[in-house]
Amino acid sequence: MKYVYAFKEGNKEMKNILGGKGANLSEMINLGLPVPDGFTVSTEACNHYYKSDKKLDEEIIEQIKEAVIDLERRTGKKLKDVNNPLLLSVRSGSRASMPGMMDTVLNLGLNDEVAEKLAIKTNNPRFVYDSYRRFIQMFADVVKGVSKSYFERYLDDYKEKKGVHLDLDLDAEDMKKITHMFKEIYKKETNEEFPSEPIEQLLESTKAVFRSWENERAVIYRKMHDIPSSWGTAVNIQEMVYGNLGITSGTGVAFTRNPSTGEKKLYGEYLINAQGEDVVAGIRTPEDINHLKEQMPEIYDEFVRLATKLENHYKDMQDMEFTIEDGKLYMLQTRNGKRTASSALKIALDLYKENMITKEEAIMRVNPSQLDQLLHPTFDFEDLKTKKEIAKGLAASPGAAYGQIYFESEDVVRAKEAGIKSILVRLETSPEDIKGMKDSEGVLTIRGGMTSHAAVVARGMGRCCVVGCSSLTIDEHNKTLTTEDGKVYKEGDYLSIDGNTGKVYGEKINTIEPTLSEDFAEFMKYADEIRKLGVLVNADTPKDAKTAIEFGAEGIGLCRTEHMFFEKDRIFSIRKMIMATTKEQRQEALDELLPYQRGDFEALFSIMEGKSVTIRYLDPPLHEFLPHEKEDIEKLASALKMDDVSVERRIESLKEFNPMMGHRGCRLAVTYPELAIMQTKAIIEAAIEVSKKGKIVKPELMIPLVGDINELTFLKSIIKEEADKLIKENNINLDYKIGTMIEVPRAVLVADEIAKHADFFSFGTNDLTQMTYGFSRDDAGKFLEDYYAKGIFEQDPFVRLDQDGVGALMIIAKEKGLSTNENLKLGICGEHGGEPTSVEFCHNIGLSYVSCSPYRVPIAKLAAAQAQIKQKR
Amino acid sequence: MKYVYAFKEGNKEMKNILGGKGANLSEMINLGLPVPDGFTVSTEACNHYYKSDKKLDEEIIEQIKEAVIDLERRTGKKLKDVNNPLLLSVRSGSRASMPGMMDTVLNLGLNDEVAEKLAIKTNNPRFVYDSYRRFIQMFADVVKGVSKSYFERYLDDYKEKKGVHLDLDLDAEDMKKITHMFKEIYKKETNEEFPSEPIEQLLESTKAVFRSWENERAVIYRKMHDIPSSWGTAVNIQEMVYGNLGITSGTGVAFTRNPSTGEKKLYGEYLINAQGEDVVAGIRTPEDINHLKEQMPEIYDEFVRLATKLENHYKDMQDMEFTIEDGKLYMLQTRNGKRTASSALKIALDLYKENMITKEEAIMRVNPSQLDQLLHPTFDFEDLKTKKEIAKGLAASPGAAYGQIYFESEDVVRAKEAGIKSILVRLETSPEDIKGMKDSEGVLTIRGGMTSHAAVVARGMGRCCVVGCSSLTIDEHNKTLTTEDGKVYKEGDYLSIDGNTGKVYGEKINTIEPTLSEDFAEFMKYADEIRKLGVLVNADTPKDAKTAIEFGAEGIGLCRTEHMFFEKDRIFSIRKMIMATTKEQRQEALDELLPYQRGDFEALFSIMEGKSVTIRYLDPPLHEFLPHEKEDIEKLASALKMDDVSVERRIESLKEFNPMMGHRGCRLAVTYPELAIMQTKAIIEAAIEVSKKGKIVKPELMIPLVGDINELTFLKSIIKEEADKLIKENNINLDYKIGTMIEVPRAVLVADEIAKHADFFSFGTNDLTQMTYGFSRDDAGKFLEDYYAKGIFEQDPFVRLDQDGVGALMIIAKEKGLSTNENLKLGICGEHGGEPTSVEFCHNIGLSYVSCSPYRVPIAKLAAAQAQIKQKR
Repeated sequence: MKYVYAFKEGNKEMKNILGGKGANLSEMINLGLPVPDGFTVSTEACNHYYKSDKKLDEEIIEQIKEAVIDLERRTGKKLKDVNNPLLLSVRSGSRASMPGMMDTVLNLGLNDEVAEKLAIKTNNPRFVYDSYRRFIQMFADVVKGVSKSYFERYLDDYKEKKGVHLDLDLDAEDMKKITHMFKEIYKKETNEEFPSEPIEQLLESTKAVFRSWENERAVIYRKMHDIPSSWGTAVNIQEMVYGNLGITSGTGVAFTRNPSTGEKKLYGEYLINAQGEDVVAGIRTPEDINHLKEQMPEIYDEFVRLATKLENHYKDMQDMEFTIEDGKLYMLQTRNGKRTASSALKIALDLYKENMITKEEAIMRVNPSQLDQLLHPTFDFEDLKTKKEIAKGLAASPGAAYGQIYFESEDVVRAKEAGIKSILVRLETSPEDIKGMKDSEGVLTIRGGMTSHAAVVARGMGRCCVVGCSSLTIDEHNKTLTTEDGKVYKEGDYLSIDGNTGKVYGEKINTIEPTLSEDFAEFMKYADEIRKLGVLVNADTPKDAKTAIEFGAEGIGLCRTEHMFFEKDRIFSIRKMIMATTKEQRQEALDELLPYQRGDFEALFSIMEGKSVTIRYLDPPLHEFLPHEKEDIEKLASALKMDDVSVERRIESLKEFNPMMGHRGCRLAVTYPELAIMQTKAIIEAAIEVSKKGKIVKPELMIPLVGDINELTFLKSIIKEEADKLIKENNINLDYKIGTMIEVPRAVLVADEIAKHADFFSFGTNDLTQMTYGFSRDDAGKFLEDYYAKGIFEQDPFVRLDQDGVGALMIIAKEKGLSTNENLKLGICGEHGGEPTSVEFCHNIGLSYVSCSPYRVPIAKLAAAQAQIKQKR
Repeated sequence: MKYVYAFKEGNKEMKNILGGKGANLSEMINLGLPVPDGFTVSTEACNHYYKSDKKLDEEIIEQIKEAVIDLERRTGKKLKDVNNPLLLSVRSGSRASMPGMMDTVLNLGLNDEVAEKLAIKTNNPRFVYDSYRRFIQMFADVVKGVSKSYFERYLDDYKEKKGVHLDLDLDAEDMKKITHMFKEIYKKETNEEFPSEPIEQLLESTKAVFRSWENERAVIYRKMHDIPSSWGTAVNIQEMVYGNLGITSGTGVAFTRNPSTGEKKLYGEYLINAQGEDVVAGIRTPEDINHLKEQMPEIYDEFVRLATKLENHYKDMQDMEFTIEDGKLYMLQTRNGKRTASSALKIALDLYKENMITKEEAIMRVNPSQLDQLLHPTFDFEDLKTKKEIAKGLAASPGAAYGQIYFESEDVVRAKEAGIKSILVRLETSPEDIKGMKDSEGVLTIRGGMTSHAAVVARGMGRCCVVGCSSLTIDEHNKTLTTEDGKVYKEGDYLSIDGNTGKVYGEKINTIEPTLSEDFAEFMKYADEIRKLGVLVNADTPKDAKTAIEFGAEGIGLCRTEHMFFEKDRIFSIRKMIMATTKEQRQEALDELLPYQRGDFEALFSIMEGKSVTIRYLDPPLHEFLPHEKEDIEKLASALKMDDVSVERRIESLKEFNPMMGHRGCRLAVTYPELAIMQTKAIIEAAIEVSKKGKIVKPELMIPLVGDINELTFLKSIIKEEADKLIKENNINLDYKIGTMIEVPRAVLVADEIAKHADFFSFGTNDLTQMTYGFSRDDAGKFLEDYYAKGIFEQDPFVRLDQDGVGALMIIAKEKGLSTNENLKLGICGEHGGEPTSVEFCHNIGLSYVSCSPYRVPIAKLAAAQAQIKQKR
């Protein structure tokens, strides 16, 4: 098995084996670019290392040694050769870019003998001992885990004693002393001599870089960026070049285009007489790359030539590192540059217009998740820089917001009326909080997961939201919020929350509003041309529907009727309906609700003219609608001519141990068919009304939580009877469909039976995920943290569709469904419908549409277009 | 299509079409027995009637009319023929016996003209008009739904006016007047004349019997006895014979053996000069059948001959009805007689020994569910007769009990110490209540379903239990229980509960203790010889294990370790473990628990010597262990040196919205691996200890709630490391297995992956049912009532395994599991493991064992033997 590759043996397609950095170094070598020579220890060696209990196999060690000999032959230099020593850098490089997450060792190959001779040969002892002491510190840190602080403290003491401030003020003799002392520190902390044998230095450094693949920040970064731990990292071992040999040397980084705006102009910075780490350290202020034209015109011209060559070759904006050693330019790295969302859009479109890439390639160039940046406010970067978070929750709905905190929805509403920007803070939200969520700038909850009520509703509204922020303690009674450190925030205090990161800040941070560019519209047009998967929207109100139309939604895939019930007048009627002890009382309450619902549906049908509108029958447990406050209970009791105690008792009796698996969904309509009849009436009468105005109406009636064929046939016959009666009475032509959600595992297993009676299946993957895993969406957040920490899960299955489990059920349901009903329409309306990898899965298994919250429509569209392109390939 | 069969066209194999009664009448006719002739309208006609919106098809009407003409030819009598009228009975008769549940019309064919002539011809006008008035009342009731009370009230008034008490005191003239008046009542209540046309009477009566298939008591009966509504009922139309024509007439019922004891001796009773309904009415006391030998020796001898012929023919104890009309014996019905459990056992064994049936047939003769009667106390029948229930819940655990009610487990414990028999009454039970449940005679809960905590634990203990009795209101604070009618029961008042029916009585009812006969042992031995499926037990304590061994359990399939934690000293340690804020504190608490657990396991291993003992790692949500009472909280706080508020806050923070889908099962051990390590230590150290004593120990370690392969591999490696270390340290040979429960739908979908790392799968069908349907076991009870009422469900899926859904998942898991691990052992340890149809399913899909609560072991064994017999056929 080959584990080690000379750069000349690789190419840019070999990222999986060589990592991104290694593959690109190889590619540059093969393009004839000036790159310091070297070799790569493959990602497979890394995986082998982990499988062998963190030991390097003899075979791998042998291959490394051979590669060194080979490199010595090519460079003419040799490890340990005091006359012409080979000095090496050892750098990580995984398949995906993980900047700064893993470790690096530089100046490897130095020891006392080599340093002594090199000092003489270069006539630059200060440079040599400076390099040597840096090497010792890095090696100690990376290989042995000795904290840098031991070394830095000594260095600071040394400077203080000498009465100087900067390293630059230290001379060669100082550096030599420091080097000596660093070796002492090394010995003291490790109980070992610093290894003088370069090959030992090299093998130990290689292993240390492998180990750094599993360090904490790398693990977190991977989780954030969906990088599987099984990929491993490669290690690049390369001849050192030095930008700090004097004023004919230097180092810099540059992008072929502006990574922030996308403008087509070289962008970057450099430092004369410096090493890469000096640029990062920020002690000296780098120059604009364009200044190099004056300072070193020949080098600049060559760099421009190489940069253009690289961009043309890679057909994408490049992010390059270079070093000038004594008047000679070396390319140290090139990679596709990271960029902001708007820059990504512009670059993709420009490259397409420059005929560098096809329309499909342009579409592939933008990460769908990035689009969120374009649609929501973000914190002012300058303002944010100085702020530190006080807590971190789950990033439930994107955007950034600041405001004064309130603990009751009613207080938020009042604040809004008084012109105050507010953040709603709750233990968790319930449907009662919808008005408060609407009137706030952002929502923060202490409990709940990515599909909790707060998360789902906030996403639907495009409202910034952080949930499950369990390190904060809320006292709803006294209206305070306390951090882990004991800091207390009271009503009216300022907080800022970031729905993209889940961070919570204990003060006001200014935000910047998003603006949608023309590029955006053009880009989405291309995505629409390519994609085959329909993109519908989850919208409950006319306002949602309008937003959705602006984002180009092709219909409503899920209208949650219960969200209509929380307006002031309505909630009272629904409460009466629930409390009714006779069918007559119940009917009376339903009769009050009917005109409201009908009105809402009329508005929705008008806005969505010609597009399908899928309406779900009442779904949540009834107790969600009931009052909890003494005052509200009394009001309800008096209206119903009941005593308070009876009302309280009824409320108590509706409480459930596990409401997610309780009396909800179609189970409500089984108990109270008159509820389904009222909702049918509202839908069909509204459809008839709008239809009469000459608009095309496409109502799709959706029965939730079906698990047994008899549930569906029972309700369908009730609904159909009512609908057909109304249509007949109005002597009108109106098509409507009746379908069901597939969200209970049992529905999957009897999908063939269900499909005989359903026009469509809509996968409710929130519930399906809950029940397939047995994870309560409101409770799982806490223990899933342990799952991530222990490597059991890499992803939140409520965010990213679990293809092995939930996805497997979807495939079974699809196959069974189509086996008995070839015209069955299949879609998804769970929160996964707006998550790119899940959208791709839906495309691949042949669903006809995804439905997601309004602000995710562009993301879903782009993901769908990319899925189509990938599939065609 | 043939819908109507003359008796001579049928036979006993045609029960599905002719119903049990019809098929047996046909069989008797073909055996040459004296049976009044007639014909049967088939069950298919009944189903057709329901499918045609409750209308009788022309085709069916024609066939009935033809059958009447045929019958007239055979009997020489004719409908409406005043000189020789044909009088008919119309009786229901479904595939399964449903005694008294459906309707009957007798004396059909009478009208004014026929009655008048018949009165003259028989010279018995009183008899004729008595029959006529009975016919009118029955027809009015059955066909038109006119309450009997209208007629009875008139009759009572009539008798009062005449100053007599008994119908017998009324003469012919009275009867004629009453007949006339009955027709008037009929007219008044229906606005129609009483139909005088016999064929109309017949068709209307036939339809009415069909309709009675769906009357409320029939529906309830079917639900109780697992009879699908799709079977329908047949209608038997038969020539009337009269046992009330004088002292040479009579009627009776008899069994070929004693249905209560099984003794082989004619058993039954008869009345001279009476009709069947007189026997039922209980006004006259019937004679012992053996008295007939003296009264009518010839008739008696013939009856004995016929009875013997029937038993030999049917090869089972027969339950017969007969009528003697004017010295001639007619057989009106024969069927396999219903019998008590002990009688069923004895008869099956006797018939086997008499060489009437094979051993397999004997095994098939006893309904497994019936065995419950033999294992638990029952109410004294005489005492029960006069009592009426005050409420009805779910029959969660069989047996009958009375006692004084207590609302707290601690009060029950104190009562027991004081020698008081008590019933524990709770809103619902939690693991804290185990001691109270143990010390009570029975348990009554207001909430919860058939797999709720109370139900599962009570069944395990063999303790009588009624759950989900939601018509009662409990006030735990004031310790009162209130019925729907407002009657209040206080602490110390007597209640009696019946765990076989779910009935609750507001007073003391004496109980009778069960005794196990030798027959039982012999019968179970035969079942053991036949069955292939293993029968293990769910047992948590040494006491359970001992009971299980007595019942012949072959091992422990599920030991729920958490049940060991509720003893006084232990609960405190587990609470400390939960409250721990550092790993050290937690370890300290676990170290305290270790010796207790080890001791329990040692006892279990000793008792179950040589048999496998499957131990489940801690499963329930931690908050179940935490205190709720102020006093306990304070005690805990002081022991932990915490303040009360912090303890309360921690308890609060552990609460979950949907604990069933929360932090439980293997998720606990993922968070706290030290918990799994402690339990492993306890198990393996105990196994080593018992092993050293020369006993064979077979521990099987079971990880609950696995849904992802990484959960299993993570925990397995921790457990295996600890176990192997201990075994190595002790230098001993000890085999142990590690397996997993399959109780989360996702586990099914990735069962192939899981099986690679599991020695066994144990289906946890309680949770699997919850999650497959999305039904919370504690909440579903309430709305499932609506499901039964509306015909959506016929069965509680927590009682009887849902083969289409949950069963389908089991098959998938089995196939996937065996595909990667051919040695995988498969079993079930959910509550379904003791339910006969579910046991049969487990046998049929090829599981190796079922595991159930101790008192259900005999049931499971018998069901398993029957499944094997059925499969062989």
